[in-house]
Amino acid sequence: MISKQRISDIRKLHQKKFRDAERRFIVEGRKSVEMLLSSAFVVEEILTTEAFHAQYPGLFQGQAVTFGSPTDLERISGMSTPPEVLAIALQKRPAPPSPSGKQPLLVLDRISDPGNLGTIIRTADWFNIQHIVCSPDCVEFYNPKTIQATMGSFCFVEVSYLPLVPFLQEASQTRRVLGTFMDGQPLASIVPQPDDILVIGNESNGITPEVAALVTERITITKVHPGRPSAESLNAAVAAGITMSQLFGR
Amino acid sequence: MISKQRISDIRKLHQKKFRDAERRFIVEGRKSVEMLLSSAFVVEEILTTEAFHAQYPGLFQGQAVTFGSPTDLERISGMSTPPEVLAIALQKRPAPPSPSGKQPLLVLDRISDPGNLGTIIRTADWFNIQHIVCSPDCVEFYNPKTIQATMGSFCFVEVSYLPLVPFLQEASQTRRVLGTFMDGQPLASIVPQPDDILVIGNESNGITPEVAALVTERITITKVHPGRPSAESLNAAVAAGITMSQLFGR
Repeated sequence: MISKQRISDIRKLHQKKFRDAERRFIVEGRKSVEMLLSSAFVVEEILTTEAFHAQYPGLFQGQAVTFGSPTDLERISGMSTPPEVLAIALQKRPAPPSPSGKQPLLVLDRISDPGNLGTIIRTADWFNIQHIVCSPDCVEFYNPKTIQATMGSFCFVEVSYLPLVPFLQEASQTRRVLGTFMDGQPLASIVPQPDDILVIGNESNGITPEVAALVTERITITKVHPGRPSAESLNAAVAAGITMSQLFGR
Repeated sequence: MISKQRISDIRKLHQKKFRDAERRFIVEGRKSVEMLLSSAFVVEEILTTEAFHAQYPGLFQGQAVTFGSPTDLERISGMSTPPEVLAIALQKRPAPPSPSGKQPLLVLDRISDPGNLGTIIRTADWFNIQHIVCSPDCVEFYNPKTIQATMGSFCFVEVSYLPLVPFLQEASQTRRVLGTFMDGQPLASIVPQPDDILVIGNESNGITPEVAALVTERITITKVHPGRPSAESLNAAVAAGITMSQLFGR
């Protein structure tokens, strides 16, 4: 049984202002909690049902576990299908990557949808991009919908928020900055380099002009159009996936 | 002003059983309605505010327009941000493509999330795939969330629902059937052929065994992993996008 007060306190973590103030976040569902527990995050508390705990006893060794009813968990959860387990963990603020580093980087300029951000993190992880730099006005990494959409990859990719212009000004001294536009070179014609930086822009408005000015290679995912009316754009997470696959895939 | 009874009748179209019975569907938002009006769909009614109509008078020429308040539209809408315009249109049931045809095809096996289906249709449209075959247990094309996620591409891609096994049995006599698996050949090593069929499986469970048995080329999006813990899979719409880009892109 979880008290009404405690449920209300945890529910506050669905709001950014409380997450920021407390520096905590919520992780929901078995797969994500399992990955959280095997990661470097500090886990404060696991909330689950007695039935679930009996089913996966090994999962919770050494953890502070609070038992609740399925209804308690449903009240805490932000998901349409409430999970049988969720966790409260402490936020990390990873050190930003070096602009002049040698590892490939993804830079996100004003991504606004948490599902898109989470999906992009998941794809980045697949292609071994271990650092992402977000503009300060990107949606929040610790938004529960972002965390959910990463499918556990929030544990494996470091995401920093910082102003993009000074970062890319320095980075573009030593390496290429690629960005997707409607009028760039065909993606298939790009020969990837191991220290490439890829910039992905906002879902509706693309890359902001001051960031676009720092892009050294403008690229485009060629649309195949035989003159019939057709799609005007790709979904941002899909466009990011196709570009990452071409640049960082094997 | 739209009557309570009329609002209640239209709201029923958010449920599949009423959509099936009436053979109607809802399209929400300016961009989607604009594409609908320029398509071959029969539009029965446009619902909008007088203010929006005054702003875009050309959009509605020759159409039956019903005016409502923003609150009326909010009551009808299924979106979290209610649109200023929506439309009721008649469903089409396109004739299925020929199994032995020469055009590239996408086959979807039990895609369950309407957002994923819509995003896949949008991407297919970008790469000029004009026909998609869905297994009967795929989520519904006319689900408002599917329609929304296509961003207008529901007008340009024909989607048929039919049992996959007989279709692919016949198709595999004359052309390749490619499917994505965890253990296939690297996608980058595949030389595309213009009449290729690509099968995409369910978000959690992949391609069903009876469909997998008819796949002639098993392919995989190679994961780049240097031995660290990382993502276990890609989002279905992203995986579909990467594969379509490689097979059908330029």
